[in-house]
Amino acid sequence: MGKVIASITTSVDGFITGPEDGPRYGLGKGGERLHYWVMGGAWTYDGGHNFAMHGPDKDFYDNLVAGFGAGIVGRGMYDAAGAWGGTNPFPGPLFVLTHRTEGQPAAEAGFTFVSGLDEALAQAIEKADGADVAIGGGADVIRQALAAGRLDELVLSTAPVILGAGKRLFDGFDHDVNLVIVKTVSSTYATHVRYAVQK
Amino acid sequence: MGKVIASITTSVDGFITGPEDGPRYGLGKGGERLHYWVMGGAWTYDGGHNFAMHGPDKDFYDNLVAGFGAGIVGRGMYDAAGAWGGTNPFPGPLFVLTHRTEGQPAAEAGFTFVSGLDEALAQAIEKADGADVAIGGGADVIRQALAAGRLDELVLSTAPVILGAGKRLFDGFDHDVNLVIVKTVSSTYATHVRYAVQK
Repeated sequence: MGKVIASITTSVDGFITGPEDGPRYGLGKGGERLHYWVMGGAWTYDGGHNFAMHGPDKDFYDNLVAGFGAGIVGRGMYDAAGAWGGTNPFPGPLFVLTHRTEGQPAAEAGFTFVSGLDEALAQAIEKADGADVAIGGGADVIRQALAAGRLDELVLSTAPVILGAGKRLFDGFDHDVNLVIVKTVSSTYATHVRYAVQK
Repeated sequence: MGKVIASITTSVDGFITGPEDGPRYGLGKGGERLHYWVMGGAWTYDGGHNFAMHGPDKDFYDNLVAGFGAGIVGRGMYDAAGAWGGTNPFPGPLFVLTHRTEGQPAAEAGFTFVSGLDEALAQAIEKADGADVAIGGGADVIRQALAAGRLDELVLSTAPVILGAGKRLFDGFDHDVNLVIVKTVSSTYATHVRYAVQK
């Protein structure tokens, strides 16, 4: 069986979005700075970008996702991303954690609505068939998996910005968890750290 | 004139101490894990330690403090540290930010009580005589200097632990601040990042 790996980008003050995140501004107002490493340079929701992920950021990312066989995201992230235009862009099937499982997407879209973390993990692990299961967020899904002791790795990319507002990854999280640094990759745009979760 | 540099260790969830920090447990209950990199291995307040800082952690630290000519800390940190036994252990004079400036320590102790950040910075910059001024914490002093636009560098050492409780570095901080990654050093015990503060 592969690992269950949550990965997300945060600001230096721990926010995974700026304020007012939603379909128009997925990372919130000013949240573009979280993903300079993803885009390979400075970009804005209004101005677009002409770059692509490159260098140490791409090496880190490619290495991480190469192991993924299935994914899990929360409904909030799925909706904020506009269901990625209606088709799953990720490697392997994507399970969407939601209290509203009616209206399942068509099978060819590559999304499956599931109503609980345990069920999502069971289905994703089966579909991953020995590969890793990715948990992409939002923050609440990552906190839930961490609190339940279901994460093998927590992967944090920290962007060089203090946002001062938005959604905090560890908001309300009150568990004590030991981690082990597995790998660190540094670039101009982010510091990426893979942590193994001690159980 | 040198730089004004704040440096502190945080957990992955942004706490600079665990719960119940004070003179007995300076980093709070379980907070010892924040400073494994300082001690060079696992230690506890009750069990002590047989190690010393070494390897990449020592290289990072020595490089940082080599530039320091004076320091500033908050009264809370000064008291929690028991005034370091009564004598300033740091290079250069240490200014202690406090509302209670009566009872100045003896000159040979190396501490000076000052009542405001501006005054502390003015005196520390003068005494540093071209070298860097270190701000060592606590969190409130660092937040105050950052909010006032007085920090040139923010240096964060992130220890591989989620504490779930304690004092958060960015608690209540609502400013948006752009940073530039100056240097990253990774060890078994921490990921150290020096950020330049954009003004």
